[in-house]
Amino acid sequence: MDMDNVYASRIEELRSLMRRNGWDAVIITGSDPHGSEYPAERWKQVRWLTGFTGEAGDVVVTQDHAGLWTDTRYFIQANTQLSGTGVELHKTRIPGQVLIPEWLCLHFSEADSIVIAVDGLAVGASFVTDELSGTLNDAKIEHCVQSIPDLLEELWTDRPGIPQTPIFATDPGETREDRIAWLREWMEEHSFDAVLLSALDEIAWILNVRASDIDYNPLVISYLLVSRGDVRWFVLKGEVEDPDTLRTFGQMRGIRLERYNDLERVLNDSGHIRLSVDSASVNYELYDKLSHSSLELIPGTSPVGLRKAVKNPYEIEGMKRAHLLDGLAMEKFLYWLDKSMEADRVVSEWDAAVRLGRYRAETDGYVGDSFETISAYGRNAALPHYVTPNSDAPLLHPEGLYLCDSGGQYEFGTTDITRTVPLGPCSELEAEDYTLVLKGHIDLAMAIFPAGTAGCQIDALAREPLWRRLRNFGHGTGHGVGYFLGVHEGPQDIRQNFNRQPLLPGMVTSDEPGIYREGLFGIRHENLLLCTEAGDNGFGHWLQFEPLTLCHFDTSILRTDLMTAEEITWLNEYNAMVRDTLSPLLPEEVAAWLKSRTAPI
Amino acid sequence: MDMDNVYASRIEELRSLMRRNGWDAVIITGSDPHGSEYPAERWKQVRWLTGFTGEAGDVVVTQDHAGLWTDTRYFIQANTQLSGTGVELHKTRIPGQVLIPEWLCLHFSEADSIVIAVDGLAVGASFVTDELSGTLNDAKIEHCVQSIPDLLEELWTDRPGIPQTPIFATDPGETREDRIAWLREWMEEHSFDAVLLSALDEIAWILNVRASDIDYNPLVISYLLVSRGDVRWFVLKGEVEDPDTLRTFGQMRGIRLERYNDLERVLNDSGHIRLSVDSASVNYELYDKLSHSSLELIPGTSPVGLRKAVKNPYEIEGMKRAHLLDGLAMEKFLYWLDKSMEADRVVSEWDAAVRLGRYRAETDGYVGDSFETISAYGRNAALPHYVTPNSDAPLLHPEGLYLCDSGGQYEFGTTDITRTVPLGPCSELEAEDYTLVLKGHIDLAMAIFPAGTAGCQIDALAREPLWRRLRNFGHGTGHGVGYFLGVHEGPQDIRQNFNRQPLLPGMVTSDEPGIYREGLFGIRHENLLLCTEAGDNGFGHWLQFEPLTLCHFDTSILRTDLMTAEEITWLNEYNAMVRDTLSPLLPEEVAAWLKSRTAPI
Repeated sequence: MDMDNVYASRIEELRSLMRRNGWDAVIITGSDPHGSEYPAERWKQVRWLTGFTGEAGDVVVTQDHAGLWTDTRYFIQANTQLSGTGVELHKTRIPGQVLIPEWLCLHFSEADSIVIAVDGLAVGASFVTDELSGTLNDAKIEHCVQSIPDLLEELWTDRPGIPQTPIFATDPGETREDRIAWLREWMEEHSFDAVLLSALDEIAWILNVRASDIDYNPLVISYLLVSRGDVRWFVLKGEVEDPDTLRTFGQMRGIRLERYNDLERVLNDSGHIRLSVDSASVNYELYDKLSHSSLELIPGTSPVGLRKAVKNPYEIEGMKRAHLLDGLAMEKFLYWLDKSMEADRVVSEWDAAVRLGRYRAETDGYVGDSFETISAYGRNAALPHYVTPNSDAPLLHPEGLYLCDSGGQYEFGTTDITRTVPLGPCSELEAEDYTLVLKGHIDLAMAIFPAGTAGCQIDALAREPLWRRLRNFGHGTGHGVGYFLGVHEGPQDIRQNFNRQPLLPGMVTSDEPGIYREGLFGIRHENLLLCTEAGDNGFGHWLQFEPLTLCHFDTSILRTDLMTAEEITWLNEYNAMVRDTLSPLLPEEVAAWLKSRTAPI
Repeated sequence: MDMDNVYASRIEELRSLMRRNGWDAVIITGSDPHGSEYPAERWKQVRWLTGFTGEAGDVVVTQDHAGLWTDTRYFIQANTQLSGTGVELHKTRIPGQVLIPEWLCLHFSEADSIVIAVDGLAVGASFVTDELSGTLNDAKIEHCVQSIPDLLEELWTDRPGIPQTPIFATDPGETREDRIAWLREWMEEHSFDAVLLSALDEIAWILNVRASDIDYNPLVISYLLVSRGDVRWFVLKGEVEDPDTLRTFGQMRGIRLERYNDLERVLNDSGHIRLSVDSASVNYELYDKLSHSSLELIPGTSPVGLRKAVKNPYEIEGMKRAHLLDGLAMEKFLYWLDKSMEADRVVSEWDAAVRLGRYRAETDGYVGDSFETISAYGRNAALPHYVTPNSDAPLLHPEGLYLCDSGGQYEFGTTDITRTVPLGPCSELEAEDYTLVLKGHIDLAMAIFPAGTAGCQIDALAREPLWRRLRNFGHGTGHGVGYFLGVHEGPQDIRQNFNRQPLLPGMVTSDEPGIYREGLFGIRHENLLLCTEAGDNGFGHWLQFEPLTLCHFDTSILRTDLMTAEEITWLNEYNAMVRDTLSPLLPEEVAAWLKSRTAPI
């Protein structure tokens, strides 16, 4: 540990706070009061405390230990960023992982009783009630969990406030009245008097509203309380008072604007109602307070997540339009990149990301990026979630592989695409890995499967070409994607878990196998796939995928001898479809270049 | 309903018994007091009551309804066998299935309270306590479940007794003392005073004993009670008194022979001990009685199942020897079949099964078949579990496909193999389906996967070649197989469920995709696969499969244009390995024939 290290000294300050309050352990999770995967700056407490910038990481601090728990995607990055902080990396999603509750059991196995402090606003209720307390109870460790809202605030003196950005309406082909009516039907069926929505994307979906409160996520920080009689939307003070917001939403039929901080009071005044709360997104502070009120609190799974994941025909059309525009930007970018390498121009990873952003920004309906572009050359791409530095970024050279993972938010859809392209000569290993990862991508994209199949049952299709050569990747193969909403959404996914959620027609899921060789290179090939009907017959009801993403895959270094005839046909047809769709809309020189890049193999 | 139908009148007799006793519903399941998949004749109550001979079927009778619940494998067979009985088929393992507890809820939704009678000996405890009572409670239906041991006995006047066959010892390379010592370690770890083993294969495994109490299953009907101080084996009266059994087992160190019917008394006299019982195999009658005793009864999963599934090196060698001998019998049989067709001999399905049995019986160490041979020609093979009639069996003709699914019990292993062979010209559809099913078989057999992978995560590899052409099969791809024990055993499997049990080195699992076209033909290709190590590298710890089964796959109708180069290589190498291994041990003319049948494609 290096005491000159700013993070090491912040942890020492926290320890001193812990001693003053009698806390044996503090848990800081990387979430916000709404269980968001991407929290606003205010809630990047793990980053403030440890310097770790990964999107998934939780911290435990005791008097004699500080640890960061994160998964395979971030091991290399965490090792670098934690150096000198005294924070130890605890690996998750690996065999034999010891998660935070189990670690606490081991660490405090001799203790008579322990006091654990959590920032109750920034930790999920179910983590505390089920995982943490459940595990400690099983281990017969006497403990008390104290919920301390904004626990780090007194140390983090320049902590940002809760963001408030202008709210605007969006059109998904269904009115908010229809969506609320659907939710009320669900309430009736399950005998609820009211539903509290706390997940920000669910609120945005049901109200057809968007804002920019969180980078890359067009969301409004708020709560929504839907009862049989009314709908109350708890937004921040400025928004309640903003004339534009009021004009647009203040007079929405049956929707009342309320202040964000009034939620608890309103709920406490609701009497004995049967209230559904979503265990995945409600925070512990709120949950704990409500469970001591007169409400009958029923934690469960909000039905909005599944309904939102199944896009309606209007949303599907929007997603297709977004992908057409996104594909044009991508092809312009790849053309520019190719020509820049040919001309020996000085181009850094950052320059490339900026250039791609500019092509997207020229597009009608573009609102912003859907996540921070990963622009990674050579060995930097071996970090699946590499963050490109904005000064002195590494330069690209006309050799080896360049990986670019990016996406756009459009008023009518969300995109997420990764292309890995050779900038010049590549090694044999690069060519082989490139081919195997593409085989996996294609095998999943070509899949046909019976209705009822879950992602975990077909994940192996994308992995087996790598597995057969004892290679693998440490992240999921696919995640759900929203309609002008989060670039990650559930409830479906395609990965090695046991998520039973079947893939349903209308769901959009990514297909992104990869391979990462530390110090050498990284490869990922990603399209978004729309699940569609594939017919009925005596064997059952069939589903398949249709690629939404429109951008050719580079074939120049492919080891076609490793591919099956079906895979080659799929690839040729896909590249031809991309070319035929985009060419009429591309500048002539880009179209000509695309034609040459998509010649059948 | 046809009242001349013997089953229809048995059901009426049961209804009269129900009225006399005040039972609103009776549930008869197809199991025995030990939760066996294959019960002895005495417990084939579903067959006696309804005439249905499938291996999985449960019956519910009320005053106005009689229903049989069975899965996809048996739909065609059940439709035929239930005709005229008045028993309605309820389909399971299909989307929207209504299982027995849910059906009872719907049927009795208006009732004030209901009395359900079950044969407590022949129904699992967890079915009654969790599924049945749990579902009825959730639906707020007041009910009482009465356990009536041998409920049908007063109607079934010529019901067979409990079988008793000679007990003998077997050698699996580990002593029973070692195995019991291992179980006691597990008891210590989990703070149990005793373990009651009720699953017959677990008892046979831990004591290294076998018998022939149940057709095809070399088991002893008994219970085993292992406490810290002693081991008590509860066997039938005749066995306790049999001089041979006594000589062999009566003086086993620390093992006491007790009478089967004394179990309950002994347990009741045990005082307040913490007893582990296996929820999957303990019957409701016993469980219910014990839960009202002074015992602390802890239902859970017996650890023996997993330990038994992982074969030790001695057992693996035995399995390999069994498969070598079994392969010789199979190749002799296929040779005979081929020559018989060439010579236009009159051969029925039954003749073929008998002939195969004869080749197996000539083999050293052969004890019996491991299940009833399925010898099915043409459209009969469309019934995955076809039972060949022993008189007037259909004749084979030199055209179309013949399917034979069979296996042997050897003193040193168990086999299970299916070959589907063309007897002459085949249709295009037969050739295409034959190829697609074999592709699926090969793709699974070639799989390499990371340690920790469960069967449900790779099941799709065997199905995708069919799925891609909108075809499928309605049974699992693979089941575990015992060492001179049950031909079906857990805890692992390869199927579309969410069984989290990882495949482990030493496990033996079948690989048996198929396709069934009602009225036309059926195809299944089955080998047993041994899970083995495939190495370690930076990407993880790797596992793979090694085929145990030694019998060539017919290539004559293969559509090689549908196969990948890797699949063709696997098939050529497998067939060559079979030929090279078996030929030196086969009669000259069979070896010569095998050489021609295994020429590379």
